[in-house]
Order: sequence, then structure tokens, then C-alpha cells
Amino acid sequence: MNSVRSEIRPGAYFDSAVLMQLQRALLGLPGVADAGVVMGTPANLELLDQSGLLTDENKKAGANDLLIVIKAESDSAAGDALKQVDSLLSRRRASVADEFRPKSLETAAQQLPDASWVLVSVPGRFAAQVARDALNLNRHVFLYSDNVSLEDEIALKKTAQAKGLLVMGPDCGTAIINGVGLGFANRVRRGPIGVVGAAGTGLQAVTAHIHTLGGGVSHAIGAGGRDLKLEVDAITMRQGLDALARDPETRVIVLVSKPPAASVAAKLLAAAQAVGKPVVVDFIGYPPPARKLGNLHFATGLSEAAEMATQLLVRGKWEMPSQLPLANCYLRGLFSGGTLAYETMLGLQAVLSPLFSNAPITKDQTLPDPLKSQAHTIVDLGDDVFMVGRLHPMIDNDLRLRRLRQEAADPDVGMILLDVVLGEGAHPDPASELAPAIKEIREQRLEIEVVVVVVGTEDDPQNLESQVARLAEAGAVVFRTATEAIEYVAGRMSEPPGSVGAPVSLESLHQPLAAINVGLESFYTSLVGQGAQAVQVDWRPPAAGNEKLAAILAKMKKSNQ
Amino acid sequence: MNSVRSEIRPGAYFDSAVLMQLQRALLGLPGVADAGVVMGTPANLELLDQSGLLTDENKKAGANDLLIVIKAESDSAAGDALKQVDSLLSRRRASVADEFRPKSLETAAQQLPDASWVLVSVPGRFAAQVARDALNLNRHVFLYSDNVSLEDEIALKKTAQAKGLLVMGPDCGTAIINGVGLGFANRVRRGPIGVVGAAGTGLQAVTAHIHTLGGGVSHAIGAGGRDLKLEVDAITMRQGLDALARDPETRVIVLVSKPPAASVAAKLLAAAQAVGKPVVVDFIGYPPPARKLGNLHFATGLSEAAEMATQLLVRGKWEMPSQLPLANCYLRGLFSGGTLAYETMLGLQAVLSPLFSNAPITKDQTLPDPLKSQAHTIVDLGDDVFMVGRLHPMIDNDLRLRRLRQEAADPDVGMILLDVVLGEGAHPDPASELAPAIKEIREQRLEIEVVVVVVGTEDDPQNLESQVARLAEAGAVVFRTATEAIEYVAGRMSEPPGSVGAPVSLESLHQPLAAINVGLESFYTSLVGQGAQAVQVDWRPPAAGNEKLAAILAKMKKSNQ
Repeated sequence: MNSVRSEIRPGAYFDSAVLMQLQRALLGLPGVADAGVVMGTPANLELLDQSGLLTDENKKAGANDLLIVIKAESDSAAGDALKQVDSLLSRRRASVADEFRPKSLETAAQQLPDASWVLVSVPGRFAAQVARDALNLNRHVFLYSDNVSLEDEIALKKTAQAKGLLVMGPDCGTAIINGVGLGFANRVRRGPIGVVGAAGTGLQAVTAHIHTLGGGVSHAIGAGGRDLKLEVDAITMRQGLDALARDPETRVIVLVSKPPAASVAAKLLAAAQAVGKPVVVDFIGYPPPARKLGNLHFATGLSEAAEMATQLLVRGKWEMPSQLPLANCYLRGLFSGGTLAYETMLGLQAVLSPLFSNAPITKDQTLPDPLKSQAHTIVDLGDDVFMVGRLHPMIDNDLRLRRLRQEAADPDVGMILLDVVLGEGAHPDPASELAPAIKEIREQRLEIEVVVVVVGTEDDPQNLESQVARLAEAGAVVFRTATEAIEYVAGRMSEPPGSVGAPVSLESLHQPLAAINVGLESFYTSLVGQGAQAVQVDWRPPAAGNEKLAAILAKMKKSNQ
Repeated sequence: MNSVRSEIRPGAYFDSAVLMQLQRALLGLPGVADAGVVMGTPANLELLDQSGLLTDENKKAGANDLLIVIKAESDSAAGDALKQVDSLLSRRRASVADEFRPKSLETAAQQLPDASWVLVSVPGRFAAQVARDALNLNRHVFLYSDNVSLEDEIALKKTAQAKGLLVMGPDCGTAIINGVGLGFANRVRRGPIGVVGAAGTGLQAVTAHIHTLGGGVSHAIGAGGRDLKLEVDAITMRQGLDALARDPETRVIVLVSKPPAASVAAKLLAAAQAVGKPVVVDFIGYPPPARKLGNLHFATGLSEAAEMATQLLVRGKWEMPSQLPLANCYLRGLFSGGTLAYETMLGLQAVLSPLFSNAPITKDQTLPDPLKSQAHTIVDLGDDVFMVGRLHPMIDNDLRLRRLRQEAADPDVGMILLDVVLGEGAHPDPASELAPAIKEIREQRLEIEVVVVVVGTEDDPQNLESQVARLAEAGAVVFRTATEAIEYVAGRMSEPPGSVGAPVSLESLHQPLAAINVGLESFYTSLVGQGAQAVQVDWRPPAAGNEKLAAILAKMKKSNQ
């Protein structure tokens, strides 16, 4: 009969690696069938339960308590194993005690003054403070720790942004800086592709595949899984993008992330449009606005992102368009085709914000009154609401002509986008009515651009060539597919990129990597193994993990500053 | 001073084309500055208001009232114009009176017995009844009318499905059957690309671009804008897909639509996987699961869909995989990498339903308890909830090994998917722990497939080649990218396609097109102009648009049947 015995150590702090090693050592003891060494969180208790390790006694452990459980073939074997916990822990301590290790970040920074980077992988509840200390010492932070609050993340990133420092994370698993991997990182060739990724395995999958394809990576910058949330506003990703844009060794940039908040996506992509280098975007799960919008190339998956980046290198330098963008004005799209309107929404929502429509893709894009435009607006004039007793706008231009004049009279409008759908069933000569109206607008307000998508074939009854020629003569910029029109409008109407704060110094990316590691020792070992200079801090939680006492100490420290 | 005068004709019915022509004729009368001829819906009243045509008097018009408004330079000019309304309307009537036209669908069907198609473009409130009549006569329906209720759509489509008939629409603008355009359609070359599209301009943009690229279209089948909603279950699109799959003249199929409901997408794509031909999918705004899943190719935009279809023709015939799919079992994915888990969710949500995860893409995919799988499940074991006081699963395999055994013990599980991420910082030899566990599973339950994605480079410290070899030896199917693994799993696990009802006869698609047109005369003219046989029904609403009377008549008719 198996016996389960356990011990709860309230408020005890141990490195996760130590706990894993303790568990393994316990499993190796005579008579032990299974063992659990975990913090007593609800999830961990449930996991113990699934392994038959939860008892009435040990289920009382709290989230900050260390819980050691032994399942053994006899009660005495279980008891013997528990008795060895302290000696197993002290054996572990002894093995690292011979090296000199600084006890604090400050001492470590004195010991290795060139260290521009601090890796933080202590438990979440202590991590923000260590990161704050690192920023105070003017170091970039690689924040591997999870379970850091969103408020802390925002505060840390704002502090960093003002100082030209990066906070990669929290929950940032991976970075490659100047050829050296931080945290989890594959060994990849150096080369001209720079990557900024929110999360860890996204960066790993992309950089590993670039390597497999024969390409190489300049830097891979992590931002953390929440960086693209509305509240965080992609501070780190925008800083990383800006640094790679300025980095002469980076020729193509890849952005990888879960889908960002809509306004964050628009801001990021506007910034990416302005970098003057090709940018491959893989916002996993975000519907790509197009295959290509100017210098932006949208990938469908991590390995395709790597493939596109590698191929873009071959195609040579991206030329910025010479036309100045239209600034501070709105787009109004007046469509007769519902699907064309929808595809245009999809393409432009990536770069224009806020964007409204009566054919919205997301609910917050809903135009309150389809009869009145606001901000950037795309209207489907074939919508049911317009169609009671009225012919479709592909046949009857009356509604569109009236709306066209209404939009042109709005002083905030800088561009009007129309579709003209030819073919059987449609108006026999739409240019005869639309071209004069376009000419009138251009004569009255030359600053308004009119862009027209003409869908048709040369066999259509309206004479495609003549339709296109007359619309162009009237002053419209004419395209034959929505894709081309979207690319043009996105290029002309993109917003100026927002400020990223103080620029991150390229020197800190290019100098031989030197780092201070606080937390997981394996990260230190890995840095040294890669030839980087590194110092491991012999970190202990303030007041040995007693949070009340730690709070008092922190207050005292603050009042002394 | 301008004078505005108006007239309300309660409950009057006129064809929209007649109303447009009346408005134009009124605008041509002496002294008339503007004119509005509309049904008195709220949207139309607001539009009149924007043009300065709304008065206290005419704003009383109801949605079923015809409202005629004249703005003229004098009160007498406005009055004179109003007086001419009847003569302008009767002039219009006289011009079409000389041809003989059947008054009912039944008579039209007797006159043109070969007509397999009925085009319906009468006002929405009458359209469902006309469509029902057409189905009773065993004709396919092209239902251009908008403002038809969802309930009517579902009922019509279910009736049609049982009879092997198509109801394209409501709100279907476009179709091309056997070279003849119905409704709005571009004149395009005939060829081997078949298209099924929910909406009109999607079909037009794709077919026109195929033509521009030198390709050609076999048939383009419309389904209507709501066909892919959960309630309608893509009845028409699935019928169309099935017909094109059986059609020997169609070699590549394109599906175009706004994003479908999740379960509808899964069902449609499962059906598309089974057709044995390449299928290009452009669900506009639906994040593509991958660039390619077996025979499915995902486009980012209408013109790209056309380009992909054209290129696929060149590449030759698609071969169905010879392996039988795993049927009636679940997938369990146990990931150490969050982004890999998320990308896999994205790829598999397109074909597996229901799919759950603690890294869900949509809210309804949320796994209630991350510690317990249900149906198809993808778990991110690096999630914060697992990570308190525990090393990341890339370093510590304990949690994953326990979960692996748990999943393998579930009799409903047919496939287990793992990632193994190599590189700096990760476990020094993951295969040493995972391979024996995989071997154990395969020995105990050979029917469970284990698929592993290994992310790494040949320079990684773990020895990529040896890791892959040992996992494969243990019985795992190993891939180097998530993309390849997703494609494999999607192919192996896809559900059998649901029934589409009675098959649509290919003969009705291949015989020379003959059609009955009820509604917009321009559609009739267009059919005849394209060389098709057609009959125009001289349709009038039951009881001249008086709906109470119409309801009584319908009841009497029913009781006589």
C-alpha cells in the first residue's frame, strides 16, 4: 500500500530550478514512487490531485507556501524521504558556494560595468522591483519572469522609454542580441534580418527557420506577450522597430506577434511603413489586410514569415515613395459593391484609425448613421437600408452622386474612393455621370484626391478602356483591382509614426554582449557558454520572501534615498 | 425662391426602374431644380432631408408609401410637374405593352419549358413567395432581391436542398452559368476555374481578374450574403462546391465570402478538403490558417484568389493523399511554446471543431480548466497558471510527461501533438525524456499517432539530428515547422464532409441557359443580349401591393390546392 506524506513550508522561497532538482532527488530515494515539490497554488494542487498526491492535510497549503509531497511504498519510506529534504537542499547550496557572487545588482554592475543588459528570471512577485533597479542603473532589461502585473509592465516600459532603454518582457522567453541568445534561443547565423517578436517561440521559430533557409539574423528583440495590448501600446515593439530601422546591419525587418489591438496595429504598421526597409508582418490570427502594402509584406505563419524575409533580401533595396503623404485628412469611400467595400475595410483598417462603415469588420467600426460619414469612412451604398424601392447603385448613380458632393464639401476630407463595376446588368455608361462629378470636385478643391477602382473586362458592354480613360481625364487615379487601390491609399494616407521616446542607442546593440543575470542559473551558464561576459547575482528575495517585512524594508530604503 | 411640393401615394407599387425613370423625367421638366421619387422609409426620408426635399407634409409618408417630391423655381412649376406624374408613368407603360408577356410564373414556365432558372428581383416583401413558386416548379432560383427575411431564406434553401435545386441569394447580385451572366456579371472567357461566392462583387472581382490574367471560368455560383451564417449553414455554398467538384469541366475551385461562422467554416473547409481538386479560399477578413492545407490554398484578397487559381491550373492535378483519415477521435496538443500553440490553434480551428485551448483565439474556444482537455484541445503548458514556482516546460518535462500519459489514457484520443524547442536555455536533451514516453504510448495504443514539431538548428547544443532521429524511432511523425505539422494534422484529422442533400444535376448547368425573369427588365434584356433564351414575366404584386388583401388571396389559393 502506498503512503502519501507531505510537508508545508510557509512563505519559503526557492529558485524553481532548485525545486525541480529536489523533486528529482526525492524520486531517486529508496521506496519513493512519486514526489511533488511545488508552490501551493490552486492549479498546482489540482495537478497534485491528478497524480494522486493531494491529501486533506497538504491541500491547506497557500499560494506562497512550498509544498513537498512524497508517495512511497511505506509510511516509513515516505518519512525517511521527507527527513532528507534539508540535506538535499544544502547539498545543492554547497555546490555553488565556492564561486564569488555579488549579492546585489549594484555590486554586479560595479563588477561588470560594460554590462548593458540585465536578465531577470526571479519569481513574478519580485521581478518588477529587480527590473526597476536595473533601469535605475541604466541597463536594458530582459524580463523572463511571468506573473508580473500589467500595471508594473506599463510603468517599467514608460520609464525605459524615457531613458532610451528596452524592457523586453515580462514573459519574454527569447532574444538574440549581437549574436548572443538571451533566455531560450536557437543558435543562428548572423545576418541582415532583424526580428521583433512579442513572445518567445515566435522568435525562435522564425529565427531558426531563417537559419535553415541559409539566412541570418542581426538582432531578435523580444517584447513580451502583452506588449501589443491597448494599455501597453506596443512600447517595446515600436522601440525595437525603430532601433532596427536605424541599424545599418539590418536590411529586412520581421514583426511577429499575436494579433494586436486595432489601434495598436494601426500605429505599429504606420511606424513600419516609415522605416524605409521591407518589413514582414506576421500578426498570428490577424487577418492580413493584403499580401503587400508598400514596404509591408504580410505572412500567413511563422515559417512563411522567415521565407518572405529571406526572399526580400534577394530583391534588393526598398525605395520610399517620393510623393508626400496626405496629412491630417480623412478618406471617404463610396462603394456600389458590398464585397469590394468589405475588402477595402480589411485592407485599410490596418493603417487608418478610426475607420467606420456600414459594412464593419469589427463592431466598434459600425457607422452610427450610414447616411453620415465620420473620420475615415467606407460606405456600402448597396446596403439593404438604401435599397427599398431604389435601383442598385451599380445601375442608378443618383444616390452616389449626391453623397459624392456631400463628402467633397466636408473640409476634413482629403481623399474619396469609388468603385465602378462594369458588366452585364450594370449602368451602360457610368463614366458619363461619374466623370463630370469628379471633374467638378477637382476643380473646386484640387487638394482632394479621387481614387477609382474599375472592375471589368475588355469584353464588357461599357467599353472598359473608354471608362478608365474618361475617369482618369476627369482627374481620378484609376486602378483595376481593389488590391492596388488599397495599397495606394494606404501609402498616401498613412499617419505619421508616433514618437518612440528616447532612441535606443545602437552602440548598446553592437558592443560585445555583457550581461548581469538575476534568477535562473542556466541562463548565466548559457551566456558564458556563448562567449559573452556575464555575472550571476546570488539573489535572495527581500526579507527571505516574507512580503510584509519586505514592504517595510522597501519603505525604509525609499525614505533614505 | 424655390418651392417644394410633394405627393404621397399610399401602398402604391412600382418597379424601381420605373421610379428612377420617373425621377429623371421630372428633373427634365421646365423649372424643376430637384426631384425625389422614393418609398417613404426612414433612410429615404433622411436622404430627402439632406437634399432639402423633406417638408412637414411629406415626412408623414410611411415605408410602403410612394413619395414624389419636386423642388422647382416656383410653386406653379412644382405643381405643373406633379400633375404630369400620371402621364409620365402611363407613357412608360405603353412602351412595353406591345410585346406579349405572361402574367405568371406558371404561364412563363409553359412558354419556356427548358428554363431551368428563375431570376427574381421583385421587392423584398414579395420575393420569397415568387422564389417558393419557382421551387415548386422545380427551377433553380437566382434571388437578387434584398430585404428578404432570414427565416424565408432558410426555408427556401432547405426546400431547394431536398430537391437538388439551388437558391442563389437573397441579395445575390451575380452568377455566371454556362457562360451566361445572371444579374450583374462581367463578360469573361469560359475556362476551367469554378467559383462559388457569397456576394456579388466578390464574384465579379474574381472572375474579371481571372479573365484579365488570361484564364477562364466554368461557372460562378452565388450564394447570397447570409449563406455562411450559422443559421443558414452555407447550404448553397456547399451545394455549389459539390456541383463544381463533380463538374468535369472545372479543374480548380475558388470560394469567396466574408468570414463564415466558425463551425460553418470548419464544415465548408472539411467539404473542400474532400473534393479532390485544388480549392482557393478567400474568406475576406478570416485569418488564413496557413498558406496551404493539402488541396486548400488561402488567398489574401480577391485579386490574389484569381492569381492563385490561375497558377494552380498550371501545376497540374491535385492528388488525394492515400492515407485514410483518422475518424471520430480527438487531437490533444501539449505545447511548451505559447506562440507555437497559438499558431497551431489558428491553423487547426479552420478544420477541427469544437477546438479548445488555454490560448484561445476566440472566446468560445476557452478551455474551462487548463488541466483537463475536452474534444480537440491545444494546451500551452508555459501558461502563467502552470508557472508559479515551476520551471518552464522547455526546461522541465515533468508536467508534460504526466499530461502525456493522461491524454494517452483517454479512449477518445487519436492523435497527440507536441512541440520540442531546442536551443540555448532549453532542456539539454528533451528526446531522452520524451522519446521513451512516446514509445510507451505507441506500444500500449498503436492507434494513437504522435506528431512532434522540432524547432531548432543544426548548431543548437542539443544535436538536432539526433533529437529528430530518436523521436522518430520512438514512433513519432516529426516535422521541423508548425506549418508542416498543421498541414499534416489537418489532412489526417479532417471530418467527413456533411451531406449537401440531393445533388444538383450537372445537366442543368451544362445545357444552354434558359431562364424566366421576374422583376428588373434590364436583367431580361441582358440575358437575351447574351444569346440566352428568356421570358420576362409581367409581374404585379398580389392585390396590387395591398398586403392585407394579398394575405386573404394567398389563403384562398392555398385552401384550393
